[in-house]
Amino acid sequence: MKAEIAAFHALLAASRRILLLSHVSPDGDAIGSQLGLRWLLQAMGHDVVAANQDGVPQLLRSDQILPGWQQVVQAPLSAKHAAGGYDLVIALDCSDLPRLGKVYGPALAHAPLVNIDHHITNLHFGAVNLVDPAASSTAEIVWRVADALGWPINPQAAQCLLTGIVTDTRSFRVGHVTPALLGVAQQLMEAGAALAPISELALERRNVDTICLWGQALAALRLEERIIWTAIPQAMRRGCNGVEQSDSGLANFMVGAEEADVALILTEREDGQVDVGMRAAPGFDVAQVALALGGGGHPRAAGCSLTLPLEQATAQVLDALKHSLAQQRGALAG
Amino acid sequence: MKAEIAAFHALLAASRRILLLSHVSPDGDAIGSQLGLRWLLQAMGHDVVAANQDGVPQLLRSDQILPGWQQVVQAPLSAKHAAGGYDLVIALDCSDLPRLGKVYGPALAHAPLVNIDHHITNLHFGAVNLVDPAASSTAEIVWRVADALGWPINPQAAQCLLTGIVTDTRSFRVGHVTPALLGVAQQLMEAGAALAPISELALERRNVDTICLWGQALAALRLEERIIWTAIPQAMRRGCNGVEQSDSGLANFMVGAEEADVALILTEREDGQVDVGMRAAPGFDVAQVALALGGGGHPRAAGCSLTLPLEQATAQVLDALKHSLAQQRGALAG
Repeated sequence: MKAEIAAFHALLAASRRILLLSHVSPDGDAIGSQLGLRWLLQAMGHDVVAANQDGVPQLLRSDQILPGWQQVVQAPLSAKHAAGGYDLVIALDCSDLPRLGKVYGPALAHAPLVNIDHHITNLHFGAVNLVDPAASSTAEIVWRVADALGWPINPQAAQCLLTGIVTDTRSFRVGHVTPALLGVAQQLMEAGAALAPISELALERRNVDTICLWGQALAALRLEERIIWTAIPQAMRRGCNGVEQSDSGLANFMVGAEEADVALILTEREDGQVDVGMRAAPGFDVAQVALALGGGGHPRAAGCSLTLPLEQATAQVLDALKHSLAQQRGALAG
Repeated sequence: MKAEIAAFHALLAASRRILLLSHVSPDGDAIGSQLGLRWLLQAMGHDVVAANQDGVPQLLRSDQILPGWQQVVQAPLSAKHAAGGYDLVIALDCSDLPRLGKVYGPALAHAPLVNIDHHITNLHFGAVNLVDPAASSTAEIVWRVADALGWPINPQAAQCLLTGIVTDTRSFRVGHVTPALLGVAQQLMEAGAALAPISELALERRNVDTICLWGQALAALRLEERIIWTAIPQAMRRGCNGVEQSDSGLANFMVGAEEADVALILTEREDGQVDVGMRAAPGFDVAQVALALGGGGHPRAAGCSLTLPLEQATAQVLDALKHSLAQQRGALAG
């Protein structure tokens, strides 16, 4: 990555106004890596705009974990923001250009594009690509670049980068948590970042309607051939003030069941489609089934959408999963 | 702590057979610190027996997270084990002697006692007391002692100590997580410990009956004056194959509710008593109410037992909590 870092450094030196972008429906690492880089560049005198099509999610809007979150704009190409022009664009935590949504457009085609990301599916779409699938998070890569270039880490940058690392690893529980990453987290804390509020605010806080839906969904739990599953019809969501089932925590929780190899949640949407979320215990794979049903994902977390009534969707996914798991267990046994 | 470490070192040098003890109903830090120290002492040629009155809990019985767990005996004073005699006793993760239960007795009174612990309530009952309430875990103190004495850290010891640290901090989420602790965790990983299995096996794994009870308990959730609460009658437990409500995860989960300052779980026991578990959001205190009702605990996690029918116990605790919270909010506002 050394040559890429040097190329990035040269682009920065030649730029006057920099636009930082992250993916639609952003998570803690998208905003954390973006704002972290913004604080670092601003401290060195750069003029920087940070933008995200969907803004900062409600649960992440806190200066304790993402100082400066109010500065993320949603329309960087509007007259107000674009008047100053941009001569460098940096995409963060984004595996392909369309994932940036409306904040990227033809008006930016003249500006060199830097691609900073950790997704294994990254398409290397930038003029410079700081991409490392072995990194825990995009925030970790930003830290490594800053460290390689000898940039001072101010407390606000440290906080945003630690929030990116902690949210993407669920506090060092999943993903690529290396000994070196713990060393990075230590240095970020020493630079002024607080660890406790990140778990409290970004990982463990939910509204009571979401907790209500957990209760209803878990009360309807079923276990079949080591598949733990539940279905969430629209009526169930309405019973909890119409809350969205957008909380990956429930699937992560269910796959912790000793008696299960796979967790499955089927959610009936208002437009009649069924969202299918799957998680696999270590050693098992749900990406194959998701792919076969027109979706995608990682071996241990995948999903798809089906245009079927809830009962039929449930039967189809259960069938496919049972078949796939039988094959996987056969391969393990053989 | 320097003088205490030197005194500990002198006692070790003079000892022939060492007994390591931890508290009744042990958790990951009790067994982790105990087995970690056992691996360290054994590697240096000491003859060591590790004992716990209640043995190793089912969910922690894995060589991936606690290598050597099979070596923890439950009756160290039986003829079989005690025949060799003990000339040094080390209590781990234990704030007072009675917490050791039946594994400590008059037969051990002749042996010097070393007390290694991180609880703020520790009574300093040892001849040597390696007690630090600012430590995240007893495992962290064992590591600091080993580091100060220049002991080599073998992979098994590293794994047990990391399990102690990770379980007591819920993977660096709660308690005294300092930058230095992250450095210790990094060194333990570098010495051969694996981090991922600890969360998978000890923090996120539950049996399906426990998950069933979460569902029933959450489906009965109530919210009053920013107290989120649920009551678990015996019939509810029977509906989930009679599973015990001994899972502190549920209370931790509930206190994550944005709309609540306190979470409360009342569990009806078979003997008619009601177990009361309470959690407080940052800035609030439930220890006062627990103490007033004959229980105890920490400001943010406390409990008590009441000899009352479930409905009356619920009314009494809710009343006390509402009163206490109103006072606390008044103090905050003033």
